[in-house]
Formats: sequence, C-alpha cells, structure tokens
Amino acid sequence: MAEVAKTSPDLARFVEEFAYGDINTRGGLSQRERQIATVAALTALGHAQPQLKSHLHGALNVGCSRREVMEVILQMSVYAGFPAALNAAFSAREVFRERDARHLQP
Amino acid sequence: MAEVAKTSPDLARFVEEFAYGDINTRGGLSQRERQIATVAALTALGHAQPQLKSHLHGALNVGCSRREVMEVILQMSVYAGFPAALNAAFSAREVFRERDARHLQP
Amino acid sequence: MAEVAKTSPDLARFVEEFAYGDINTRGGLSQRERQIATVAALTALGHAQPQLKSHLHGALNVGCSRREVMEVILQMSVYAGFPAALNAAFSAREVFRERDARHLQP
Amino acid sequence: MAEVAKTSPDLARFVEEFAYGDINTRGGLSQRERQIATVAALTALGHAQPQLKSHLHGALNVGCSRREVMEVILQMSVYAGFPAALNAAFSAREVFRERDARHLQP
Amino acid sequence: MAEVAKTSPDLARFVEEFAYGDINTRGGLSQRERQIATVAALTALGHAQPQLKSHLHGALNVGCSRREVMEVILQMSVYAGFPAALNAAFSAREVFRERDARHLQP
Amino acid sequence: MAEVAKTSPDLARFVEEFAYGDINTRGGLSQRERQIATVAALTALGHAQPQLKSHLHGALNVGCSRREVMEVILQMSVYAGFPAALNAAFSAREVFRERDARHLQP
Repeated sequence: MAEVAKTSPDLARFVEEFAYGDINTRGGLSQRERQIATVAALTALGHAQPQLKSHLHGALNVGCSRREVMEVILQMSVYAGFPAALNAAFSAREVFRERDARHLQP
Repeated sequence: MAEVAKTSPDLARFVEEFAYGDINTRGGLSQRERQIATVAALTALGHAQPQLKSHLHGALNVGCSRREVMEVILQMSVYAGFPAALNAAFSAREVFRERDARHLQP
Repeated sequence: MAEVAKTSPDLARFVEEFAYGDINTRGGLSQRERQIATVAALTALGHAQPQLKSHLHGALNVGCSRREVMEVILQMSVYAGFPAALNAAFSAREVFRERDARHLQP
Repeated sequence: MAEVAKTSPDLARFVEEFAYGDINTRGGLSQRERQIATVAALTALGHAQPQLKSHLHGALNVGCSRREVMEVILQMSVYAGFPAALNAAFSAREVFRERDARHLQP
Repeated sequence: MAEVAKTSPDLARFVEEFAYGDINTRGGLSQRERQIATVAALTALGHAQPQLKSHLHGALNVGCSRREVMEVILQMSVYAGFPAALNAAFSAREVFRERDARHLQP
Repeated sequence: MAEVAKTSPDLARFVEEFAYGDINTRGGLSQRERQIATVAALTALGHAQPQLKSHLHGALNVGCSRREVMEVILQMSVYAGFPAALNAAFSAREVFRERDARHLQP
C-alpha cells in the first residue's frame, strides 16, 4: 500500500477510508466472517492474487486457521471452477511459507 | 434443480453429489460460514443471480439474519465494484419479498 | 436507487457518497470523459446492464451524442469480444427508445 | 442481428465480416469443432446467454447432437463452476424447446 | 498438481476424481473435442494461464496439431476480445518451446 | 506484437487490421477519448495487464497526462472494485518508470 501511495495517493486514501474505514469496521459481521467473505470473493474473481494474499494474511490474523482458509478456497471450486481454486491454493501456499519464515501463528 | 434434472440429469447429479455432498458437508467451517463465503462469491461473480438467490435463502435458513447477508453484499462493493453489489441487492430484495410472502423467518 | 435505498439504505448512501460524491466530482477529467470511461467499463464487464443503461443516459445528458456512445460500445468488441458489445448495443437501443418516448435530446 | 443492425449497422457489419467472414470460415478446424469451442467459451463467460443460445442452434445445425452440446456444458462446471454450467443448461433447455416447437432435428 | 497436493490434498483429490475421473472420462465427446472445449474456455476466462498451458499440452497429446490449438485461440478473439486471445497466444508460445526443448511431437 | 507474429501471424494481422485498422481509425471519437475508453475497460477486466500497459503508453502518447490516466484507473474502483484499480495502478507505475527511464513526455 505504501507503494500505491507513491503513484496514486488518492487511490491509497480511498482504500484506507472506504474499504478499511467505512466498510470493514461496520458491525453486523465479525472480522472473521468479513475475511471469509473476502477470501471467497477474491478466489472467485481470479485476477486479484496480490489482494488475495493480503487477505489470507488478514484472515489468519483475525483467528481463522490454515485449514479454514483452505476450506473456503476448496469450496470455491464449486462456484468458480477448479482453475480459480487452484490459483488461490498457490497463493495460500506462498502465504503459509511467508508465515513459516516469519514464525507467525497460525 | 428439478428443472435442470429434466435437461441434464447428470449435471443435476453432479451438483447434488459434488457441491452438496462432497464439499458442503465437509467439516472445518460452519454451515453459516460456508453460506457467507458463497453469497460473497456469487455477488462478486455477477453472472449468477439465480444461484445467488438460492444461496441467500440458504444463508437465511442456516442462521444468518437479513442484515448479515446485506453486510456481505455491501462489503463486495469494495472488491467487485458497486454494480455487482447493487445487482445482488436487487436479488436480496426479491428473496426477502418471497420470504415475507411465505411467512418465513428471518 | 430509491428502490435500493429501501433494502439497503447504507449501500445507497455509499453509492451516493463514494461514487457520486468522492469520485465523479473530482477534477482532472471532464464529465464527458468520465462517462465514456464508465460506459466502456460496464460494456466490457458484461454483467451490469442496469448500470450501463443508467450511465448511457448519463453520457447523453453530459454532452455525448448517440453516435459517440455507440462508438465506445463498438470499440469494446476489440477488448471484450462481440457478445459484450452486442449486449451493450441492446441496452443502448432501449435507452434510445426511452429517450425518444420522453422526447429527450439527444 | 437484424435488430442490432438498426441501432448499430457498423457493429452488425463487423460481426458479419470479422466473426462470420474472417474467422469462422478459416480452415484448420471443422465447423463442428468451432461450435464446440464457442459453446464452451460462452458457457464459461456466463454473461452471454443470447449469444450462447444462438451458437447452441449453430452447433446442432452443423452436426452436434443434443447430448454432445450438453457434454460441453457439463464439462464447463470443472473450469468455470456450477453456476455457469447451470445457466447454460437453462439456455440449452430453451433452445431444445424452440427446436421441438419448430420440428427441427436434432 | 504434486505441488497442490502438499498444500491441499483434498483439492488435488477433487481435481483428480471429479475433473479427470467423473467428467473427462465420460463418453459422448472425443478426448480431442474435450480438449478443444477446455482450451477455448480457459482462453476466454483469461485468469487461468497455468491451467491453459497444461491443457494445451493435453490437446497436443491427444491428437490436436499446433495449428489447430492456435485456431481455437484465434477464434476466441471474437468471443472474449483480443487481450484474452493474445495472452493465450503467449502461453501457447511457451508450451511450443517447452515441447521443442523436450523433442515432443507435435 | 512482433513476438505474437512469430507464433500466430494471423492473430497479429487481425489485431493490426481489425483493432488498429477498422476500429481505432474510425471517426466519431477523438484518439484521446478512445484511449480513455480502452484504459477503463482493461482496468475493469483485470486479466489484461500487458495490454493495459500498452494502452497506458498509447493514452500518454496521444495527449493524456499521467494524472488523467490515474483518474480513469481511480474511477474504476467504483465499477470493478479496488483490486482491479490497484492492479492497474501497479501497471501504471511501471509504465511511468519506463517513460522516465526513456525520458518520454509526459
């Protein structure tokens, strides 16, 4: 996001204010449920691997287990097909390795 | 689904066996979380309104409130844009009306 | 939008504030150029015909001619394929008829 | 296509010349294989049901059986998910009924 | 696939059982026709280049010529636009080079 | 494009003749407006970063400023979501760096 801010400070600000400010801090769903919804959507969309990786970290940081995020990805094979699920599984593997390397739980 | 079974009994059987049998009955996520993930993905994909309506009923039937499914849809405006969220909101309105007409809770 | 506001007042408010408030009133592009960009994107996405019709009206209201919006749609056959362009042309025809019936220029 | 030609004669001409003239009359694939490829792609894209119906007729007209086009649609559940395959199956059912009503084989 | 199996053995198993077991071994279409359908769909979807490359190998392995798979890709410019066809052509070039390096026919 | 021509001379020729010949040289929209439409569509589609980069150069070459193309990308967050806009912003940053390295204006 620091990188985006250099090219487009306004885009970075909108992500900050709208996505993280207005939407994700609303009540009505737990942080865990919001991350499950986002991981599902980004897996299904298919063209958003950098954002998917960021939200896989997010999901693991707010209490999802590795198995749980893999279940969300697996379920997407039904709704968006196996290529979308497989590409998301590749992103998950990278996220898990990053977390292993940085000794992050889970 | 009865309609699909007339044109393509095999497709209906695969939906039944793979989507409802193999995937949705797996452990690791609650039924409620699986429906949240599915509503998010179908909202983001945009071209699957009949399936979205079916899963909005599903989400409400396994314990989500109307406000909660609307929160999932609202959140998708961040990840898939406002047209996707607005079209899902139209589907949700129809689902709520169907449930009102049939006196279904919630 | 009045319809959306009944089901989801918050979604209607975000469209109002973010899409129409924060983004479309920014300087840096003319209203005409913003509408051209939006018609192009909604044509390419393919699953947003109600929003496309709304922005075709918008484009015509801020100074685009009917020929100009059809040129944008035609150009999208190169980038998103003929089905996307054809479906947008159907929406444009409906918009032109609505405007004819209401004696709107252009 | 006659309808499109009224709103956008140039778009109709490009479809005619480019899609039907330049591409579909090329050698290297049989007409039957070209229709299989098109039915597969339009099923996967999901937002092009009118064009899918037109090409389902096309496939049946150049020698595919009803079972064969349903196999293509069924196979797409693997690559684009079940909602895409189900919506295509609905379009196929309508095409089959139209052909039954007009006593067309197959 | 061996890589996927490490992160998600269940996803690998579903691909194996459902995609390769249940669907691709069905009768009703030749292996060659199934590969043409898959290459077409993955080209049109655009976000599945690793899977496209795998199925380009598959198509060439079951009897398609290089010219034939390029015809499928070329045809997709009509239905999904030139960017989708161009990106698939880049993947095809890589596949052809891999096969040249490994002295595979065709 | 020279690269594509080696694998698929016909695809390169169709891009040349249809996209650059038939469509982009039509009257009815300025070159600047056509580039704005294309940048918008490729940002929204999400799976066409190489083509987006090519058209960002194109837009800057026909008179758009860097701020103007960033405005188009920013606007797409409304219609296609933030991931699509962010990925396009990454492509824009690379294009700006390429132009800086080659001392191109703007």
